[in-house]
Amino acid sequence: MSSTFGSVLRLTIFGQSHAPAVGMVLDGFPAGFAPDFDELNAFLSRRAPGQSPYATARVEADEPEFLSGFSGGRTCGAPIAAILRNTDVRGKDYVNLEDVPRPSHADWTAYAKYGESADRSGGGHFSGRLTAPLCIAGGLCLQWLSAQGVRIGAHIQRVGAVCDASFDPTDPTFPAIAPLTVLDGAAGAKMAAEIEKAKADGDSVGGSIECAVTGLPAGLGEPMFDGMENRLAQILFGIPAVKGVEFGSGFACANLRGSEHNDAFYYDENGAVRTHTNHAGGVLGGITTGMPLVFRVAIKPTPSIAKEQESIRFSGGSAALTVQGRHDPCIVPRAVPCVEAAAAVAVLDALLEGKKWS
Amino acid sequence: MSSTFGSVLRLTIFGQSHAPAVGMVLDGFPAGFAPDFDELNAFLSRRAPGQSPYATARVEADEPEFLSGFSGGRTCGAPIAAILRNTDVRGKDYVNLEDVPRPSHADWTAYAKYGESADRSGGGHFSGRLTAPLCIAGGLCLQWLSAQGVRIGAHIQRVGAVCDASFDPTDPTFPAIAPLTVLDGAAGAKMAAEIEKAKADGDSVGGSIECAVTGLPAGLGEPMFDGMENRLAQILFGIPAVKGVEFGSGFACANLRGSEHNDAFYYDENGAVRTHTNHAGGVLGGITTGMPLVFRVAIKPTPSIAKEQESIRFSGGSAALTVQGRHDPCIVPRAVPCVEAAAAVAVLDALLEGKKWS
Amino acid sequence: MSSTFGSVLRLTIFGQSHAPAVGMVLDGFPAGFAPDFDELNAFLSRRAPGQSPYATARVEADEPEFLSGFSGGRTCGAPIAAILRNTDVRGKDYVNLEDVPRPSHADWTAYAKYGESADRSGGGHFSGRLTAPLCIAGGLCLQWLSAQGVRIGAHIQRVGAVCDASFDPTDPTFPAIAPLTVLDGAAGAKMAAEIEKAKADGDSVGGSIECAVTGLPAGLGEPMFDGMENRLAQILFGIPAVKGVEFGSGFACANLRGSEHNDAFYYDENGAVRTHTNHAGGVLGGITTGMPLVFRVAIKPTPSIAKEQESIRFSGGSAALTVQGRHDPCIVPRAVPCVEAAAAVAVLDALLEGKKWS
Amino acid sequence: MSSTFGSVLRLTIFGQSHAPAVGMVLDGFPAGFAPDFDELNAFLSRRAPGQSPYATARVEADEPEFLSGFSGGRTCGAPIAAILRNTDVRGKDYVNLEDVPRPSHADWTAYAKYGESADRSGGGHFSGRLTAPLCIAGGLCLQWLSAQGVRIGAHIQRVGAVCDASFDPTDPTFPAIAPLTVLDGAAGAKMAAEIEKAKADGDSVGGSIECAVTGLPAGLGEPMFDGMENRLAQILFGIPAVKGVEFGSGFACANLRGSEHNDAFYYDENGAVRTHTNHAGGVLGGITTGMPLVFRVAIKPTPSIAKEQESIRFSGGSAALTVQGRHDPCIVPRAVPCVEAAAAVAVLDALLEGKKWS
Repeated sequence: MSSTFGSVLRLTIFGQSHAPAVGMVLDGFPAGFAPDFDELNAFLSRRAPGQSPYATARVEADEPEFLSGFSGGRTCGAPIAAILRNTDVRGKDYVNLEDVPRPSHADWTAYAKYGESADRSGGGHFSGRLTAPLCIAGGLCLQWLSAQGVRIGAHIQRVGAVCDASFDPTDPTFPAIAPLTVLDGAAGAKMAAEIEKAKADGDSVGGSIECAVTGLPAGLGEPMFDGMENRLAQILFGIPAVKGVEFGSGFACANLRGSEHNDAFYYDENGAVRTHTNHAGGVLGGITTGMPLVFRVAIKPTPSIAKEQESIRFSGGSAALTVQGRHDPCIVPRAVPCVEAAAAVAVLDALLEGKKWS
Repeated sequence: MSSTFGSVLRLTIFGQSHAPAVGMVLDGFPAGFAPDFDELNAFLSRRAPGQSPYATARVEADEPEFLSGFSGGRTCGAPIAAILRNTDVRGKDYVNLEDVPRPSHADWTAYAKYGESADRSGGGHFSGRLTAPLCIAGGLCLQWLSAQGVRIGAHIQRVGAVCDASFDPTDPTFPAIAPLTVLDGAAGAKMAAEIEKAKADGDSVGGSIECAVTGLPAGLGEPMFDGMENRLAQILFGIPAVKGVEFGSGFACANLRGSEHNDAFYYDENGAVRTHTNHAGGVLGGITTGMPLVFRVAIKPTPSIAKEQESIRFSGGSAALTVQGRHDPCIVPRAVPCVEAAAAVAVLDALLEGKKWS
Repeated sequence: MSSTFGSVLRLTIFGQSHAPAVGMVLDGFPAGFAPDFDELNAFLSRRAPGQSPYATARVEADEPEFLSGFSGGRTCGAPIAAILRNTDVRGKDYVNLEDVPRPSHADWTAYAKYGESADRSGGGHFSGRLTAPLCIAGGLCLQWLSAQGVRIGAHIQRVGAVCDASFDPTDPTFPAIAPLTVLDGAAGAKMAAEIEKAKADGDSVGGSIECAVTGLPAGLGEPMFDGMENRLAQILFGIPAVKGVEFGSGFACANLRGSEHNDAFYYDENGAVRTHTNHAGGVLGGITTGMPLVFRVAIKPTPSIAKEQESIRFSGGSAALTVQGRHDPCIVPRAVPCVEAAAAVAVLDALLEGKKWS
Repeated sequence: MSSTFGSVLRLTIFGQSHAPAVGMVLDGFPAGFAPDFDELNAFLSRRAPGQSPYATARVEADEPEFLSGFSGGRTCGAPIAAILRNTDVRGKDYVNLEDVPRPSHADWTAYAKYGESADRSGGGHFSGRLTAPLCIAGGLCLQWLSAQGVRIGAHIQRVGAVCDASFDPTDPTFPAIAPLTVLDGAAGAKMAAEIEKAKADGDSVGGSIECAVTGLPAGLGEPMFDGMENRLAQILFGIPAVKGVEFGSGFACANLRGSEHNDAFYYDENGAVRTHTNHAGGVLGGITTGMPLVFRVAIKPTPSIAKEQESIRFSGGSAALTVQGRHDPCIVPRAVPCVEAAAAVAVLDALLEGKKWS
């Protein structure tokens, strides 16, 4: 389905970095909801460039224009469409890239797929800019979910060698939003230094993000290919730079015994089924357990670096490339709201599909 | 889409552990292909129980009966349907589980979703038995792909604390198939010991699997939500016990600089675009680079263990549970062909969708 | 999606006329439902061959074997799979057809699509036999809907020049089930004569079917491409021999003025919104009005006739063809339950998707 | 899928009559195509209001703004997004409709589905205005198809009691485009009079449209639920006012014998398989025969009429309604390009999915 995600709630994303606009269509969103647009814009600003010393200098208003889906400030059941104009386009930064694909960017694969017709300017359809419409959709979903008692929050788990504390998977506490959203402020300061160092070296650095969803009922998700893990992974790998997705214990489960890994059931004081631990990450058989849904994503280092790199020319021969332009030395901080947004879209879709017949 | 996966090639899986049968429908498979059924059965036997000292003692012929999709031994374009009868059903092993959900199994989530009507016998629709029809579909796809020069192979990367060698991501060598399919025989011996130890303790142990796909053209996959990573992750999380999926450098990318992580392009002697390294795992922007596609999946320890565990009764109160019956102390060896099968289905779907108009 | 239909409820059909079996997988059916299997078999027998003097002499038990989806006689949430063995296969009737496509059958198009590999025996995947699994799925849906007060019934509207009475579109009365299910018994007798005459001539005759759905709430269906008309048409054209689908006034609306065609609203004694007439056929903007849903389908004359016809040989040159074997002189009577079944699947899918969040 | 149609080519439509814009996203369109935008605008003007004396007086530029999908004037493989601003919105015409649903409009069903939140102004998401983005998408597809030798053309088959000539289904001749696109100019003049008469009466009149597709290869379409008839019907019923869809002989087949209806095969001088007649409408078993694809759609009379009608008030009680504002006395002429556009989207999707592996 390429640029469309979802079953009952369907998100379609369009746009290129240097096209007139990027945008999204969100179909199936419940009618009668009045979003707080200031809150939405605040959410979008967490992803927007130019918000922190660690982000690209590209400045855009990034206030979405809503084209449809509302009547009198409330969602009306019709598809919600919104666009963001690409106002600060500096195509000339990319002129020298037309013939030389940037290592670890999609320049080459776009060329392999679409040939000469591919729009490689600024990464085209593969640009991180496409996460802006994802955040519009996700921001709306987050607000709707929040009104139902479902909260989604993420934090930077790691930048380079520096690790943040981890969520308590049985009862996560969501951190304050900040340029670097972390649980442990000291770790955040070290991460900032790590990013500064990479920047000073004309280099970039990777990281990872941990995300939790609380307030979900047990019994959500469909078995086999449409469980919560399948849905979340499918949308999360739509965020550029994501190289891995793991739930609960994730890859660490490889070195655990069943007796360590199994989450023992008990009834809490309200008679709700809970588990003492949450290695499952809130999902068994693809279906929510009622415990917090916890997952992590790996984010690769920004491929655009100032250091000289080896590449080729499409026209033939090799080339030495130094990427000009505005690029984040670490994309992880801006990816935090993108992960929350992606999770919100997938969770709301599952919630709407999982409605009980009564 | 729950039990159906795919876009142009669509796989539907059905069955429960103790229902009359499990099976699959594979729609969109190319017409005119004559599978080698002996080779298919050999492939299925790699997943089948009772094949190694580390697997459950449940013995089933597991030779699929094909109900449709063939004419004169060749695929005819109609959907391929195949079933496996559940002949060795020992429901009584599960009687004491009706009221007591097994920790880290889907017993509880099936109950939360479907209520009293859920079939919890032997894990019902969530049983590992459902990977048998996945392997039928995948086995057919593997043969078709192989005839086109596309090879898919996996090995056990880790069991408990024991790690195998890793694929050379720029030029993987596929290991010999054995009870424990590994690159480094010495590591395999240690893994076997690790599994024996867990078994002797009435416990189980987790692991991970690495898989590579070679021979793919560059330019395969659709951007955004339907890239190779999205598709592979969606189907791989359909294999019970998978807790994480990562491509190329995966979570290790968090601690890398862009200058280390970027894969420099060059032309090989035949004029093909290649990269010196392959941290990308063969995918950029969701689209194949032409380098080997490399990914890893985390497999949790089998939740069914002989040790006593704490659980609840659906009828109320707590329960001490000791799981009887036949269970693998380590599911990783049998998951290797499942990972190959899942990859084959996703790759063939992408190949068929990505056909060029000419 | 080819052989899979539906959004939240998904029906997959497989099989060929002379393969070991035909069957279906129905995924997303509500858990906890205990079908009346005798009632289901009675429903299937309405479609089965050999039930009336107007039907083919091919006799099959046509009692489905259920392979999965049940636990203790109730649906358990897992996909329901059922098969019908093809026991009375007389492939030799079709031997002379291997090289000569039957006019107005899919023999030629199957060859054009799949080449030599196509299974043309008995129509292969295009055989009317494939409506048997459709009726299994539809029969289950009909029972579930009936328990919710939704009734679906069809009658033969026309055979050749003979027309039955029409449903009162504001309050249809469902006819008794009989070999020829009609509203007007006298018309039924004339239809029987029409069919006998065609048979005596070694010929066949077409007809049409009218179907009504009562008890649906207003507000069902999704706008644009997923309205009730879109969904019903998509599945109804999956029944072989259907050449047209119309709702409410249908093609007769061409010769009506707006002032004649518009359905005036009023409140009934219970405060429910109703219309005095129902030219809309119970659907406006793709969404149910709360009035009965009424539609008609055109059924072409059975293409297999005993008269000599002109055709070609795939191997080259022309051929004179006389179709041997068992064929209905009029398929319309057996298509009545197929139309009901198709409608039931589409309606239940829309109902499940349209569940209200509360 | 509601507002999204298609398999490999996916069209998403959004907007409301009085929202800021209507628009569409077309994903999966082949890369490297340079549309003729003047030709596209000429095509759109055939649907646009104010183009003929028989159309509403609402005047809009209706030149789409393309937001993405192009690079250097050529499609680049990324989703094509285009919008049309709603500049001539006269919401006040609709003020008196807020409480009174117009008979045979979707005002009531939108209310039944979405409640008070529904946007009923100008028909909201159910407005005929939504066919404008359909025509943008269809116009692009028509040009691409035309470059491949596939032509799609429609004509008014009927208005009220006046019938045009019919296509020769074995070799249709496409008529000249005119306010009333007809095969027989004399019939066109009578249709114009019929429309004038309805207008003078403060009334409206229905009609039907016949469409043909030539140049298609045999073997296109998927069996069962995704054949050419299923796909075309699904998208055609997305055009407001369509009440019926029939292929080839359509409902007239009810009164034909098999010996009359069957299309005899022969080889033409080039060795291509053809049929002497084309009652099949170019489709057998859902798959193209290689003969022209021919179908008809029924268009109901415009429900907005100046005559007083009976309705209800949502707030309670009955109401006498006279619809003000700009409305076509006959929508059929403007629906002709919409039918062509819908057909083009469905045909191109099938063509792209049906590409042969080689």
